[in-house]
Amino acid sequence: MMRARAVAAEALGSLLLAACVIGSGVLASRLADGNDAVALLGNTAATAAMLYVLIVLLGPISGAHFNPAVSLVMALRRALTLNEALVFVVAQVVGCIAGTLLAHAMFDLSLLQQATTVRSGIGQALSEGVATFMLVFAILGALRWRAEAVPAVVALTIAAGYWWTASTSFANPAITIARAMSDTFAGVRPADVPGFVGAQIAGALAAASAGALLFQERTET
Amino acid sequence: MMRARAVAAEALGSLLLAACVIGSGVLASRLADGNDAVALLGNTAATAAMLYVLIVLLGPISGAHFNPAVSLVMALRRALTLNEALVFVVAQVVGCIAGTLLAHAMFDLSLLQQATTVRSGIGQALSEGVATFMLVFAILGALRWRAEAVPAVVALTIAAGYWWTASTSFANPAITIARAMSDTFAGVRPADVPGFVGAQIAGALAAASAGALLFQERTET
Amino acid sequence: MMRARAVAAEALGSLLLAACVIGSGVLASRLADGNDAVALLGNTAATAAMLYVLIVLLGPISGAHFNPAVSLVMALRRALTLNEALVFVVAQVVGCIAGTLLAHAMFDLSLLQQATTVRSGIGQALSEGVATFMLVFAILGALRWRAEAVPAVVALTIAAGYWWTASTSFANPAITIARAMSDTFAGVRPADVPGFVGAQIAGALAAASAGALLFQERTET
Amino acid sequence: MMRARAVAAEALGSLLLAACVIGSGVLASRLADGNDAVALLGNTAATAAMLYVLIVLLGPISGAHFNPAVSLVMALRRALTLNEALVFVVAQVVGCIAGTLLAHAMFDLSLLQQATTVRSGIGQALSEGVATFMLVFAILGALRWRAEAVPAVVALTIAAGYWWTASTSFANPAITIARAMSDTFAGVRPADVPGFVGAQIAGALAAASAGALLFQERTET
Repeated sequence: MMRARAVAAEALGSLLLAACVIGSGVLASRLADGNDAVALLGNTAATAAMLYVLIVLLGPISGAHFNPAVSLVMALRRALTLNEALVFVVAQVVGCIAGTLLAHAMFDLSLLQQATTVRSGIGQALSEGVATFMLVFAILGALRWRAEAVPAVVALTIAAGYWWTASTSFANPAITIARAMSDTFAGVRPADVPGFVGAQIAGALAAASAGALLFQERTET
Repeated sequence: MMRARAVAAEALGSLLLAACVIGSGVLASRLADGNDAVALLGNTAATAAMLYVLIVLLGPISGAHFNPAVSLVMALRRALTLNEALVFVVAQVVGCIAGTLLAHAMFDLSLLQQATTVRSGIGQALSEGVATFMLVFAILGALRWRAEAVPAVVALTIAAGYWWTASTSFANPAITIARAMSDTFAGVRPADVPGFVGAQIAGALAAASAGALLFQERTET
Repeated sequence: MMRARAVAAEALGSLLLAACVIGSGVLASRLADGNDAVALLGNTAATAAMLYVLIVLLGPISGAHFNPAVSLVMALRRALTLNEALVFVVAQVVGCIAGTLLAHAMFDLSLLQQATTVRSGIGQALSEGVATFMLVFAILGALRWRAEAVPAVVALTIAAGYWWTASTSFANPAITIARAMSDTFAGVRPADVPGFVGAQIAGALAAASAGALLFQERTET
Repeated sequence: MMRARAVAAEALGSLLLAACVIGSGVLASRLADGNDAVALLGNTAATAAMLYVLIVLLGPISGAHFNPAVSLVMALRRALTLNEALVFVVAQVVGCIAGTLLAHAMFDLSLLQQATTVRSGIGQALSEGVATFMLVFAILGALRWRAEAVPAVVALTIAAGYWWTASTSFANPAITIARAMSDTFAGVRPADVPGFVGAQIAGALAAASAGALLFQERTET
């Protein structure tokens, strides 16, 4: 049976992560006054910093997934049972939605919103597949060679992803659902969510395969 | 009896931290010429860098709190006596005020000022509560699992907080008092100080409870 | 005989690196709306973050060169045979070209392009020589004194190089070829490629000499 | 007798540091098109990244001072003889001047220039005193408690100093002389050099005293 503390860690970490992603998008775009590159710099710095911190704090308790795609891969690798993974996914989605409400409350916005930002098309789906591939591949590689660097590796993978993919790397189904509930800088139209989530799962599975090939035993050049 | 060196470390560290927070706000807003997001990027980078450095330098001497909310929680956890905590708080407030004067002197501004920036309302109070929760929660978790990462964790928690909370994360009663004495980028109207400090103390106490639940013993997933 | 996994690591790492360099340039310049310094900040952050991650992940498999100039120096130092170095160079060039195509696909751009950005003259050649000197010198020094810091040292060397050299530090013949195939922020006119590559090889050889002099045995002041 | 390799390390490191400080200022201000805060962000990132790298590479050979104020303090602490310190200072000044010429050459500027940026007044002198105090204090503290963190501590101290002091923290007499020879973003009028250097030496001596008091033996709270 899954320990309650691990589930609480997933829920709280997902809440804080989503609140940071949404909240920093709101503040950055307000202050940047139309310069979206400056806004994205603030959004990137906040998200990466928060990821590093949350993984240090909660990694020893739950693994600090905060991401259904990651929990799915961990279940495939037998690090979690399927039941445990399902409970994690529920905690992640509930946490991310609660984090969105918290961000809206801090910025005096309507709590319940529906995003209108269109993010559709082949480039966007490809971007989410690539972004999630990169995230899961990075986690598997860091766990293999340098587990203490997982917080930095995940934070920097997402920081880079915000810039080098056309979708700004959601790379996380729970965060995608939360962003669909926020009509702000980080939002995504609900109609585009299924395509994003499908691409994310495909990318995660591809990374699990690539990781199994490349990281299976220690090698030296 | 408290060693004089620890008190001196708290006072000097608080002075340098406040001078950095205020001074980088002044320079950044001067240079940014109205683009507050760019100014906040400079202010964030300077504050986070200084926090990392000061905690490395002074952590082994006093714990490097520089923050009455942190000293209060440490007293509740019996890491400090109540008397020691009170002496720390006085050193922190005096240090932060001196740092504000130093920043004003470096930038050729009037030494004594009164801030006029309004930061009131429920969103601001909620933000300060959340920001201080996050800071204390991060300190407790990092101390629990990876004490050598405390400087990076605190620096990155505040860097994120500058962006994801609506109040830009003061998260520190002594810094709040100092900012009320500076009518610059980082200022806060004196009338808004009590609400900020109250929210900060509430957030710190909530984090102490959450930390007691989540970080009480080592666990593996 | 060279292991296939090392070659795959060089190809995949080069692909991801080139896609990040090109892709973040596209997004950053789109969002920055003419402010090239802001665009370069985003491009720098993404590139440095990606380099850190890729070297942690793939360094234990292939050494994580992703760069013919580095493989050349490693062959001179007998860490690779000449044959192995040649196979690496082919994998790096193919990987970088594939990464360029991936970036174009994500951003819904024509897959095949030819860059038009002029980067000629003595200052540009000198810059590429200096940039590649600095990169190879940094790798040799970090390997000598603090091998676990190679990911951070390489990432920060390139981050600095984007700003302090007049050419923004390509410092890599494979990336230079890839950039010649992208008429975007990071592009370079094909006619300027030979001068860049020549300067890069000269800089790498100078660094190998300087490194042999300065890093040959442990010394204390 | 001083080893030639340590002197070469000081000269080469000072050259690369000065070229980075000057060069990144030129590129950043060119690209930023009048937004000096954005330019300073690029200048800060490049300088801090370069400092981290150079201290990792050259610290084990010479201590990686690159700064007459630091060598002076090390001589006072008997880590260097006075003769050694003098040779270091000559290498640092020559290196910084050569680095300025290199930056000018890369950017196709006149090699020999004289800066015209006025940086005078009490606030500027106070700033340089405070900045150099902070730098030397940080070095002494990091050496005392966490010597492996010296590269990060120095890099972040200067990154913060660029923003929180009114002079943007030259904090180094050799760099100050070099900057007087560059009429670019990072320049300083020759007439203002003596005031800067005097304040820097005063700040360094104050830090040596403060460090002797605070860092003399390991203490726990």
